[in-house]
Amino acid sequence: MTSKSKLVVRYAETDQMGIVHHSNYPIWYEVGRTDFTKEMGMPYDEIEANGVMFPLLSLNCKYIKAAKYNDTVIVETSVTKLNMVKVEFSYKVFRESDGELLNTGSTVHGMVTKALEPLNMKKEKPEIYRLLQAAMEK
Amino acid sequence: MTSKSKLVVRYAETDQMGIVHHSNYPIWYEVGRTDFTKEMGMPYDEIEANGVMFPLLSLNCKYIKAAKYNDTVIVETSVTKLNMVKVEFSYKVFRESDGELLNTGSTVHGMVTKALEPLNMKKEKPEIYRLLQAAMEK
Amino acid sequence: MTSKSKLVVRYAETDQMGIVHHSNYPIWYEVGRTDFTKEMGMPYDEIEANGVMFPLLSLNCKYIKAAKYNDTVIVETSVTKLNMVKVEFSYKVFRESDGELLNTGSTVHGMVTKALEPLNMKKEKPEIYRLLQAAMEK
Amino acid sequence: MTSKSKLVVRYAETDQMGIVHHSNYPIWYEVGRTDFTKEMGMPYDEIEANGVMFPLLSLNCKYIKAAKYNDTVIVETSVTKLNMVKVEFSYKVFRESDGELLNTGSTVHGMVTKALEPLNMKKEKPEIYRLLQAAMEK
Repeated sequence: MTSKSKLVVRYAETDQMGIVHHSNYPIWYEVGRTDFTKEMGMPYDEIEANGVMFPLLSLNCKYIKAAKYNDTVIVETSVTKLNMVKVEFSYKVFRESDGELLNTGSTVHGMVTKALEPLNMKKEKPEIYRLLQAAMEK
Repeated sequence: MTSKSKLVVRYAETDQMGIVHHSNYPIWYEVGRTDFTKEMGMPYDEIEANGVMFPLLSLNCKYIKAAKYNDTVIVETSVTKLNMVKVEFSYKVFRESDGELLNTGSTVHGMVTKALEPLNMKKEKPEIYRLLQAAMEK
Repeated sequence: MTSKSKLVVRYAETDQMGIVHHSNYPIWYEVGRTDFTKEMGMPYDEIEANGVMFPLLSLNCKYIKAAKYNDTVIVETSVTKLNMVKVEFSYKVFRESDGELLNTGSTVHGMVTKALEPLNMKKEKPEIYRLLQAAMEK
Repeated sequence: MTSKSKLVVRYAETDQMGIVHHSNYPIWYEVGRTDFTKEMGMPYDEIEANGVMFPLLSLNCKYIKAAKYNDTVIVETSVTKLNMVKVEFSYKVFRESDGELLNTGSTVHGMVTKALEPLNMKKEKPEIYRLLQAAMEK
């Protein structure tokens, strides 16, 4: 399963190079995860309401082409790894006008309680685990 | 009492106009409040640990001259109004190199509990109220 | 003429109060201006391509109710004042689910060249001036 | 050569998890590069004034421990790779109070003209190249 999120580049996301500042891509990935979790059947705010949070353990970005103000970009999001304590999401960012691939990346997340203590998703939150697994295998 | 906070403009704070994006000044004001509350005797994180939060009710900014990447700016912060349920902070942002005034502004804050319910500072948190009052009158 | 922009609150836009950080509203206003200028017939990137920029002179925000992660908000944008050297935009931010008014604000912009020198829009860029005027009066 | 940058975590940098949002670390790295280039003998704004820009090609972050509002953090920055067309910076972020390592990362940058065209630093900007090389080897 791959979710598609459509974003229009905000002026505030540009820097004095005249392109989107690189720190915005991780934020766009997060928008992608928001849409992905909705599509998989449990929006991330509901996951947090269930007492589970997905803080980042690592982040990778590859910057291929620059996005500019007012570009429409598509963020494709999928789950690429899952085990009892970690989940990896992967991303592709395209420019809508010409389909150009602008950026690729991935994020690895721990699964923790509101108190930031690690939990075993598969055992303690089997419903969420199954939804992630089904979305990864779909 | 007026606190002075020194900041160096970050590249990420610029936009494609080649100047600091206007949305950063409210964030600089907040840095000013952090330093102000330290100087007045109760850092804002301690205020929150006491179960009090200061969400914004209103914000005003006047943009006089542009700040640029790598400029050192000084944020001057003071309390300009205080009553049982609201506090107003005022700000002046100067460029250090030539003392030029770049920006002025003010923020009005409610005083609420962690559950975002209003509280009467003077009655329920007299210590914090007195510190703000003393800082305003100093 | 009033343009309507639909946004979904990003996780990165929240702060440890659990609500949208106040500094995001000016960025949402800017998204509103982007959509407004498209609707009026000249997108802001085209305005800049014509050598005109609209830096902020002042900003006002009133925070009425908090927005939260994953809320869908509607930003209504209109031009409320215009003269040869300045334009004022006004904004209303609503929560889509219940139509609750969350925030109102306005921004006053100078009209300058790429070198940040003021210009007389009515004389030097009559086409842009007329579009803004028509949009204000519509 | 390793530069040390001291930052105090801003309230706006937190998210509703109650910790620093992950997208801020790349911005802190950039603050580190600003200080690093000053120390090496040519501040980044001067490098850009020389017609050279360092856009990101890739970014890696490892999140070890969370930073919180008002924490003082130290960003250690160094150049870890350099060739004619690319430079890699590496970063370590420590919490000052207890020396805890919070985050490590690296960024790879292309070297391009203002028009975003690649240039051969060693040939076309030997002075900047030598400064980077000297800083790496120091």
